[in-house]
Amino acid sequence: MKAFAHPAEARHDPRFFLMRGRVRPNFEVPGRAAALREGLSRLGIVPEIPPEAPRAALEAVHAPDYLDFLRDAPAAWAALPEPGPEVVGNMHPTPEMLLEDARRPKGLVGQAGWYSADTACPIGPGTYDAAIGAAACALAAAAEAAQGRTAYALCRPPGHHAYAARAGGHCYLNNAAIAAQALRDAGAARVAVLDIDSHHGNGTQGIFWLRGDVLTVSVHGDPDGYYPWFVGRAEERGDGDGEERNLNLPLAQGTGDADWLEAIETGLSAIRAFKPDALVVSLGFDASEHEPLNFLAVTEDGFARAGAMIAAAGLPAAIIQEGGYNVERIGGLLGRFLGAWGG
Amino acid sequence: MKAFAHPAEARHDPRFFLMRGRVRPNFEVPGRAAALREGLSRLGIVPEIPPEAPRAALEAVHAPDYLDFLRDAPAAWAALPEPGPEVVGNMHPTPEMLLEDARRPKGLVGQAGWYSADTACPIGPGTYDAAIGAAACALAAAAEAAQGRTAYALCRPPGHHAYAARAGGHCYLNNAAIAAQALRDAGAARVAVLDIDSHHGNGTQGIFWLRGDVLTVSVHGDPDGYYPWFVGRAEERGDGDGEERNLNLPLAQGTGDADWLEAIETGLSAIRAFKPDALVVSLGFDASEHEPLNFLAVTEDGFARAGAMIAAAGLPAAIIQEGGYNVERIGGLLGRFLGAWGG
Repeated sequence: MKAFAHPAEARHDPRFFLMRGRVRPNFEVPGRAAALREGLSRLGIVPEIPPEAPRAALEAVHAPDYLDFLRDAPAAWAALPEPGPEVVGNMHPTPEMLLEDARRPKGLVGQAGWYSADTACPIGPGTYDAAIGAAACALAAAAEAAQGRTAYALCRPPGHHAYAARAGGHCYLNNAAIAAQALRDAGAARVAVLDIDSHHGNGTQGIFWLRGDVLTVSVHGDPDGYYPWFVGRAEERGDGDGEERNLNLPLAQGTGDADWLEAIETGLSAIRAFKPDALVVSLGFDASEHEPLNFLAVTEDGFARAGAMIAAAGLPAAIIQEGGYNVERIGGLLGRFLGAWGG
Repeated sequence: MKAFAHPAEARHDPRFFLMRGRVRPNFEVPGRAAALREGLSRLGIVPEIPPEAPRAALEAVHAPDYLDFLRDAPAAWAALPEPGPEVVGNMHPTPEMLLEDARRPKGLVGQAGWYSADTACPIGPGTYDAAIGAAACALAAAAEAAQGRTAYALCRPPGHHAYAARAGGHCYLNNAAIAAQALRDAGAARVAVLDIDSHHGNGTQGIFWLRGDVLTVSVHGDPDGYYPWFVGRAEERGDGDGEERNLNLPLAQGTGDADWLEAIETGLSAIRAFKPDALVVSLGFDASEHEPLNFLAVTEDGFARAGAMIAAAGLPAAIIQEGGYNVERIGGLLGRFLGAWGG
């Protein structure tokens, strides 16, 4: 199996993280990529550097003004009076404001909130280069899948919480959505996304909410008790052409292997019924029992079995790295998960 | 003139404030109330303690579940693992999530974001008591206005950024909206709100957006460069029954007395044309040239003239304290402003 990683991903080193009213160190550290590379090496896989992501492939999913903001905001922010080291939004457009015809403001501090849903996506000087590097990995994996082969994209930062024009939860560019769109553009008539990160893939859901050509399936901790809190419930099934093209499988706190794997099997059944030409897997390891902010309790064997089940679906897959924050564990989990494809 | 202040207002002592990516001391300090009392004393006014606010008067503007959250959240927060000292939301529902049928989560951390639009409204143990104390002051001033007399409510925390079910920008309960609604309930057929705080009164606008019986007028710094960023533009005129019942008069950065007073006069013209039975004034002093985060540059004479112009409208008014954060100055500004009514 080919794997892709981009050296620029190491340049994203977010610090700000607000948790229960306190600022604490961010969990999405550069060391995650090193740990995942180590996991690949155990399978004898050396990741390749992908070609740069064409702007058109990013704009196929993301708004051009949002891409410009991610690229340009850190330098402009540094020129503000007494700026913090990272761009962090402190106010966000809420539903009432939409009713009142909310508009993007010209001011940078306001734009920082306009383009983010939360405080967990600080933008530093290296963020944009890392994000487009991660997107390039996703595109390279999608190109492999378009040729009928499964490949792994070591994406950092992750992507599944990013909407078309809004960052959130460690995510800036939605690598999985970019891969799914690239597969569509390469000729796949139907693409399915299976998201097994422990957090609901709300950005991916939002991007494809109205579309019938991409089925989005997410297995995750119940948002009543877990990020992203407001969406991710079973009743959310898509709308318009996308009606019944979104499947959420929320799980109770403490769910272990058996019920987690059963939910994945339910998701795979829906995917088989959809008859996609290719699969995108949003692969998080934060469902692990050893995660710092764990909500689910999946074992290493559970991840190996999940990999085997997904591989058995027989679809060419672009496997996109999402979350998973225990740097002591995620390399081993990646090795076990990918082992199902024979390395 | 009668004035009202509530001793519980001093129990609100917010600390968390996120500005340009750094946590800094909050500007909305208890000392503001002391400074404003001092301003009243120069006019020989001793504020009275108002009767407690009836829950029904709060529910006439705010959602019951939101009121319960403000009351109960701090104790529940303190029981979380490693909680910060205040309830602070870190994720907010954004427009895409509304499309996806966003719902209030059961979890407290998620609810903290659900019920807030930004990080500038931390909820501490004394916040709810202070907020209902401030609302009681607004109701007492409204009761005076319902009798044809003008009165002042020393409200702290302020209110005009609070929506029906969402805190924001130092505000929790919308004291001005509560006063306007109380005036309607006391028999006023039409009520006008004139907001001269330097920030757009977005919560008040949102609460009355669809209503024809309450005209909302706001004179404020252009939101393209100033909180609340996303709303407050001249094009926002209300909708449904409230169409043409909202008037925003945004001003450029650095605007001084002449243009500020002209905007107030424009607002008063609209109010006279509306023929209200009573007026609610959202009175902020943050348009002052001496404010810590100033955007406008109004002098002490400017505030005196604004008071004279508003008094000359001849309407019984409930004057509701909003912002103004220079504790060395706001007492003097209050004295000059209220002086127009003869103390």
